[in-house]
Amino acid sequence: MNPYRSHTCADLNKAHVGDTVRLAGWVHRVRDHGGVLFIDLRDHYGITQVLADSDSPAFKDLEKVRAEWVISIDGRVKARDAALVNAKIPTGEIEVYAQGLRVLGEAGELPLPVFGEPDYPEETRLTYRFLDLRRDRLHKNMMLRSNVVRSIRNRMWNAGFNEFQTPIITASSPEGARDFLVPSRLHPGKFYALPQAPQQFKQLIMVAGFDRYFQIAPCFRDEDPRADRSPTDFYQLDVEMSFVEQEDVFAAVQPVIQGLFEEFGEGKTVDADWPRIAYKDSMLWYGSDKPDLRNPIKMQVVSEHFRGSGFAIFAKLLENEGTEIRAIPAPTGGSRKFCDRMNAFAQQQGLPGMGYIFWRKGDDGAMEAAGPLAKNIGPERTEAIRQQLGLGEGDAAFFLGGKPEQFESVAGRARNEIGRELGLADENSFRFAWIVDFPMYEKDPETGKIDFSHNPFSMPQGGMEALMGDPLKVHAYQYDLACNGYELISGGIRNHKPEIMFKAFELAGYPASEVEKRFGGMVKAFKYGAPPHGGCAAGIDRIVMLLADTANIREVIMFPMNQRAEDLMMNAPSDPTNEQLRELRLRVVPKD
Amino acid sequence: MNPYRSHTCADLNKAHVGDTVRLAGWVHRVRDHGGVLFIDLRDHYGITQVLADSDSPAFKDLEKVRAEWVISIDGRVKARDAALVNAKIPTGEIEVYAQGLRVLGEAGELPLPVFGEPDYPEETRLTYRFLDLRRDRLHKNMMLRSNVVRSIRNRMWNAGFNEFQTPIITASSPEGARDFLVPSRLHPGKFYALPQAPQQFKQLIMVAGFDRYFQIAPCFRDEDPRADRSPTDFYQLDVEMSFVEQEDVFAAVQPVIQGLFEEFGEGKTVDADWPRIAYKDSMLWYGSDKPDLRNPIKMQVVSEHFRGSGFAIFAKLLENEGTEIRAIPAPTGGSRKFCDRMNAFAQQQGLPGMGYIFWRKGDDGAMEAAGPLAKNIGPERTEAIRQQLGLGEGDAAFFLGGKPEQFESVAGRARNEIGRELGLADENSFRFAWIVDFPMYEKDPETGKIDFSHNPFSMPQGGMEALMGDPLKVHAYQYDLACNGYELISGGIRNHKPEIMFKAFELAGYPASEVEKRFGGMVKAFKYGAPPHGGCAAGIDRIVMLLADTANIREVIMFPMNQRAEDLMMNAPSDPTNEQLRELRLRVVPKD
Repeated sequence: MNPYRSHTCADLNKAHVGDTVRLAGWVHRVRDHGGVLFIDLRDHYGITQVLADSDSPAFKDLEKVRAEWVISIDGRVKARDAALVNAKIPTGEIEVYAQGLRVLGEAGELPLPVFGEPDYPEETRLTYRFLDLRRDRLHKNMMLRSNVVRSIRNRMWNAGFNEFQTPIITASSPEGARDFLVPSRLHPGKFYALPQAPQQFKQLIMVAGFDRYFQIAPCFRDEDPRADRSPTDFYQLDVEMSFVEQEDVFAAVQPVIQGLFEEFGEGKTVDADWPRIAYKDSMLWYGSDKPDLRNPIKMQVVSEHFRGSGFAIFAKLLENEGTEIRAIPAPTGGSRKFCDRMNAFAQQQGLPGMGYIFWRKGDDGAMEAAGPLAKNIGPERTEAIRQQLGLGEGDAAFFLGGKPEQFESVAGRARNEIGRELGLADENSFRFAWIVDFPMYEKDPETGKIDFSHNPFSMPQGGMEALMGDPLKVHAYQYDLACNGYELISGGIRNHKPEIMFKAFELAGYPASEVEKRFGGMVKAFKYGAPPHGGCAAGIDRIVMLLADTANIREVIMFPMNQRAEDLMMNAPSDPTNEQLRELRLRVVPKD
Repeated sequence: MNPYRSHTCADLNKAHVGDTVRLAGWVHRVRDHGGVLFIDLRDHYGITQVLADSDSPAFKDLEKVRAEWVISIDGRVKARDAALVNAKIPTGEIEVYAQGLRVLGEAGELPLPVFGEPDYPEETRLTYRFLDLRRDRLHKNMMLRSNVVRSIRNRMWNAGFNEFQTPIITASSPEGARDFLVPSRLHPGKFYALPQAPQQFKQLIMVAGFDRYFQIAPCFRDEDPRADRSPTDFYQLDVEMSFVEQEDVFAAVQPVIQGLFEEFGEGKTVDADWPRIAYKDSMLWYGSDKPDLRNPIKMQVVSEHFRGSGFAIFAKLLENEGTEIRAIPAPTGGSRKFCDRMNAFAQQQGLPGMGYIFWRKGDDGAMEAAGPLAKNIGPERTEAIRQQLGLGEGDAAFFLGGKPEQFESVAGRARNEIGRELGLADENSFRFAWIVDFPMYEKDPETGKIDFSHNPFSMPQGGMEALMGDPLKVHAYQYDLACNGYELISGGIRNHKPEIMFKAFELAGYPASEVEKRFGGMVKAFKYGAPPHGGCAAGIDRIVMLLADTANIREVIMFPMNQRAEDLMMNAPSDPTNEQLRELRLRVVPKD
């Protein structure tokens, strides 16, 4: 028999009254009610109330225990008085009268209390992570993550995917960030790299003849710190399929993600309609390539209403090529106070401001348009705008003009702010959309240099023929899944034809030799019979963050780094020994 | 609809005859039967025979396809003539008459053929791993591994374990090998280490209040090359439990491993009786701490029969302290030829030889003992030995003497060889044993220094009190699971008491400051309420190797390194750029 416990701290209930039991766990809280000690004993599973009075042979020893000691208790199960029943916990109808005590692990003065979960500085919480994790909220988050990962694996297996592990100590597999390097001892002066993603390996798995791959894969990116990102390693659900087009990937992924959010979304609605939205439309309508569709606001182009109008700023602006006026409709936002506040928001975001019109009940009882802009363009144009936007009394619209790429993202933030302020979004839902038709290339506005805008491994829509025209007009078979304003998944149909791949890289300024050097293994593989293939990757941290409703990534990782990429609990990074450096034939260059 | 295929290459059977279908896959083999082309089309799922004659509009194009091209075929399903049915494959009753062809990916001249799987040098196979993996044997091995990992996870979940991911870029967590280091860019001159195992993290997870942890965890050890070991990273099933003793761990692990071997053992018997064998007994009986129990030979101490006997070598040897004579019984080995061969084997292994006795039918029809040794010690002692060993006519026994630690392992190898030669082992079975009671410490025979013999984190049996006596007499709560001559699992009940831990390290010559420095995070954690805990780790590669019946670890890893720790396909390790070295503030020291 186990010497520490006969039951867990969640096991006992009325059916056990009268039983002799043994429990083990942490002392969650001790209360001394004048000669009667109450101890909340806590383990992974739950909490059980233990009590003892001076008649108990364990009383004297129990008086010594302190918070977070680990103890094992012998006792008898008693029913609680009806008035003292706690319906919130499964053991709430009973308590255990302690007759014996064994101390399994004492605890010193706590640098971070567990009971009550008071707010503490994050540095302390990370240094004593093992204490912080004992708190209910973090414990729940870790269990959520564990269960989410389990559910993902089951869903992928059931969908016919196989899980394969890819190398970790390997060659560089660039995804736009810096590599972490690992010096080789057997080959001094040479370095391995940790993969930024298993991108090349999963494509090689397809070339090797496996059909549907997935992995909950560790990824390593040496990136500069950012609040919502782990600065060293993170996990992604990595997926690849052979003989597929874009819609096949969507059809495989949606049931997995939708089912996952239904399983763990705690009753929030999970929309089953996942629209495909072209990147260009997403930027126009939502000012973002990861739109929050819970917010119903959809922006529109209203340039025609301002061309040659009395609102000189917009009218003149439209004379320049490539400019547009766009409207952000704001249903129920029809008050000057609100409009001024949103205008101030736009100014904080670095714009000169947003023009606006709002519609109110006039003195004569009829609807009237208000705001300086309405006055400038006159009633006919104002009414045409209102009709285009489908607004009415009590509503407002904001206007931004210029080259779209210069104001699109601010417009997106204004849309979010307006939606938030007006309470337009359904907070209790998850809304998904596939963002598609990303441009393959982009031009650096300063240098004029053409480069890949996303993943260089994606197949250009239209294949080789498309690459012979204007690169900036080429769309890639590349897609993101947006959910509630976050990018949850990114993927693409891959370029599996070496000749198209070399051409695609050439357009971005990479000669064939560079491609061979950086992606030699994969390019070589494509020469020996590569199937069409594609896939995607989903951020596990991000999924759990959405489900746990937290914006702090360290709340969903068991042992996270701080934002300076340090592990305060384990003391990493640290100084190497001279012996280690000698074996690796490395020297640290002193600071200038 | 998917543009590449309507069915996989394993889907079609008699029920589809007459259907128009589309298949995609690799050209496994092309045969030209005088105007009729036969193509075996292969995908992940199976093989389908495709044919075309000159009436087919696809014939001209099909004539051009070569081995390993990826193609998509439009055609009609036909029943095969009864004489041509292949009962071995699910599609063996049909073939597809091709009417259309689309080439999806051409293949150049193959450096490594897939069809027929001819033997090729391993360097070629590793350079073109994506081709080698298309071969049936490796494809099956990878699927076996994938299914084994899936089954392990399910079994662990169903046993109430939770899967948690632990950090990979972290602090050193030594397990007796060298660390791989990762230089920090944000903290130049400092280094992270990749964990040799998640040992400290899993113990911290227990201290953090989680009860049953597992992970299929990547582990990193910078070890010198060895044939049966991955030189960089490998995966282990990592397990830890709170509030347990040794037998609780065994009770949790056995059903998982036993069930796994029953599921994937292809009908081999899986013994449900897992004996506990003390390390000392295992060395005596089997000459190994990972005995192959399929071999029924059990060695015995027979010193008393030789003490003061006429066999001077053994008799004199026994006068020295700490010496023993041990016998290896060899049922059915009773011929001089066999005995001489085994004696020669021992000499190859560096011993002066093995004495032997064998029992044969004498000229008078009665059993007689033969061999020089029998003559030397005389019939009474010879008969006493026979009776102790339970041998009879037609059997033999071999004898080794000296200090056990000097001949034990050779004795073990001789036992294996004898069992193999005589066919004593049941090859169609998996036999398990828990090896327990490992010594906590060992003495270096040269320096006389005391050091840990295995894991320094194990709890000494007898706790603090035991550490006050002779360290060499202390057993650890440490255990291995042996299966068919391999160590499958290693584990222990941990030392969760800081004061016992410091004492244990002190005995091995590590001052408290060193312990704090190397294991600071864990030691600190133990001061704030640590539960008794223990666990184990099982090598995934080893399990799959046993199930796949291969001795080459590269046969069960998707993208393995070669034995010089190089990835020939991806070209790793490789030279860093100057920019990378500058960012890390590192310089490579030129070779002397």
